Amino acid sequence: MGVLEETVGKIGDLDQRAMQAARSRQDTLTKPQGSLGRLEELSIQIAGITGKNQPRIANKAIITMAGDHGVVASGVSLYPQEVTVQMVLNFLAGGAGINVLSKLIGARVVVVDMGVKSDLASDARLISRKIGHSTADMSKGPAMTRSQAREAVEAGIGILEAELARGLDIVGTGDMGIGNTTPSSAICAAMTGKPASAVTGRGTGLGDGQLEKKARVVQQALDLNRPNAKDALDVLSKVGGFEIGGIAGVILGAAANRIPVVIDGFISGAGAMIAAGLAPKTRGYMVAAHLSVEPGHKAMLEYLHLSPLVDLDLRLGEGTGGCIGMFLCESATRVLSEMATFEQAGVSTAGEK
Amino acid sequence: MGVLEETVGKIGDLDQRAMQAARSRQDTLTKPQGSLGRLEELSIQIAGITGKNQPRIANKAIITMAGDHGVVASGVSLYPQEVTVQMVLNFLAGGAGINVLSKLIGARVVVVDMGVKSDLASDARLISRKIGHSTADMSKGPAMTRSQAREAVEAGIGILEAELARGLDIVGTGDMGIGNTTPSSAICAAMTGKPASAVTGRGTGLGDGQLEKKARVVQQALDLNRPNAKDALDVLSKVGGFEIGGIAGVILGAAANRIPVVIDGFISGAGAMIAAGLAPKTRGYMVAAHLSVEPGHKAMLEYLHLSPLVDLDLRLGEGTGGCIGMFLCESATRVLSEMATFEQAGVSTAGEK
Repeated sequence: MGVLEETVGKIGDLDQRAMQAARSRQDTLTKPQGSLGRLEELSIQIAGITGKNQPRIANKAIITMAGDHGVVASGVSLYPQEVTVQMVLNFLAGGAGINVLSKLIGARVVVVDMGVKSDLASDARLISRKIGHSTADMSKGPAMTRSQAREAVEAGIGILEAELARGLDIVGTGDMGIGNTTPSSAICAAMTGKPASAVTGRGTGLGDGQLEKKARVVQQALDLNRPNAKDALDVLSKVGGFEIGGIAGVILGAAANRIPVVIDGFISGAGAMIAAGLAPKTRGYMVAAHLSVEPGHKAMLEYLHLSPLVDLDLRLGEGTGGCIGMFLCESATRVLSEMATFEQAGVSTAGEK
Repeated sequence: MGVLEETVGKIGDLDQRAMQAARSRQDTLTKPQGSLGRLEELSIQIAGITGKNQPRIANKAIITMAGDHGVVASGVSLYPQEVTVQMVLNFLAGGAGINVLSKLIGARVVVVDMGVKSDLASDARLISRKIGHSTADMSKGPAMTRSQAREAVEAGIGILEAELARGLDIVGTGDMGIGNTTPSSAICAAMTGKPASAVTGRGTGLGDGQLEKKARVVQQALDLNRPNAKDALDVLSKVGGFEIGGIAGVILGAAANRIPVVIDGFISGAGAMIAAGLAPKTRGYMVAAHLSVEPGHKAMLEYLHLSPLVDLDLRLGEGTGGCIGMFLCESATRVLSEMATFEQAGVSTAGEK
């Protein structure tokens, strides 16, 4: 039995007893019952995930995984492929959106090379788990081998467990990879059965003609490779990406270790679909940070049975939306732990007239 | 000319030059253009408000105003009126929702007694601007005199200016007052012309019969007092509340001093309608934090030409939703100021293939 199967085997149900305790406590806090809406629900979910009646979020990490995509040769992105490696260097230098937002919420950024095309110079701040130098062009054949797909997912599990050893109460997923909305659309179409045209979007800003071409490339990859929706590793290998596999692994690792995992946007959503395909119970450990501008994201969230926390027209990726979701998770758990009860504060309850 | 007229006279247009500079800078940052969606728009608005190309948010305050309402005698709330003063003490002790969330975002909470029914013991942490010991029952006559309405708004302006002297880059409004969704619904109906039944909600959790009764009380107050929608002080005096007037003053003071003001939920929205009625340009200085569960809130936001940042089923008030809005404002300004440009980071731009 491999690391993947062991990890999947550890993923259990949410802790109903902790959820009930959190729900009961919410109703004793000095506010009308239910008046903090989704923050209350979130606190109850996180109690169920962690198994703690009053979970605390102190150690936070955003794991941003980078990889390149052979399919960019088919002209699916506005940006040159070199931007992937340039952005990885930007992450390490602290200049990207994810650096700014994670600093604000007090989360560390963990940058992982899952399969950038060029070789990156050794850097203590960069974790190298290169499965390959870019995937192959999925419109001409499978993006990677089945063994590489497994390797990518297991690398993600390993990354999560290494972060756990450093202290981790919540994790967010993030991505970087020029062209990676294309495999994400393909995964979405493969897993949901929707046509490529319905789940393919403008990515970094394609025009109408370019968008049509991109959808054709996605459909071509699906028609050629015929991924099996019931076999998530098959989907990942045929139309996925190394960073998407890594993200799936992070999510599985989080669920196996009862850590809440905040799913960022469209690419993270593709990783989450692979994770849910491998282990359906993983869904309960996920928090959907936001609704992406990418049209396929809605279908992904439906597949995942998730409702996004916010809708702010984001489409950057990197884990940026996840920072907002993580802030809301911390808001939720702090309300649960830190607010005074009616009894503590000497406040009258409803109906005491 | 009174303080109110002087303040209104100082409220000008947003600074188009600063907005253009912020917009241009957003397009040079290392992300696809527009990919941070509403965070980008928010940064541009805050540039226009402050007149700074790269505004910084360091000093933050939530101003939570408390007042009681004579109309509770008509049975419009589940909670006894004593809860208002009990919750003020809870704010001072740090046990309420607003304390927890403002601490998380690093904002100070400024608690103001605008018209709580009972006398509060002197406390250095409490600002007393009591306009009266509760308003009168608006279903039997005007809630307050016109002179009290002006006094409440001017007190709010004074509070804002005192906070400005302590250092203030952004302010959020908050409220506490058993029964205060009732005058808020009345203000909404008066200013928008909608029937009471369309803009009256369950407040802290009324049942169906109680909701119908509440809507009848709101309609009765409107029919009896006939507030003049074109005269916001008249509306405030006839169907408003002392804390709602105070909130309107905080908003006017913020706009006059070019400070972004985050509007919390339904009661803050009523204060914002009064402020916009007194000075229409104030709208540009407002950020709507969230969409409240109260059904009238949507009509308020339409009147204010505002689009809420999030929709999390909140209905607590106190300024709690405003904390989330303030976090998003800080996210937005930090992205604008702290992200690297394509040139700084050596990242290729779109089309450079």
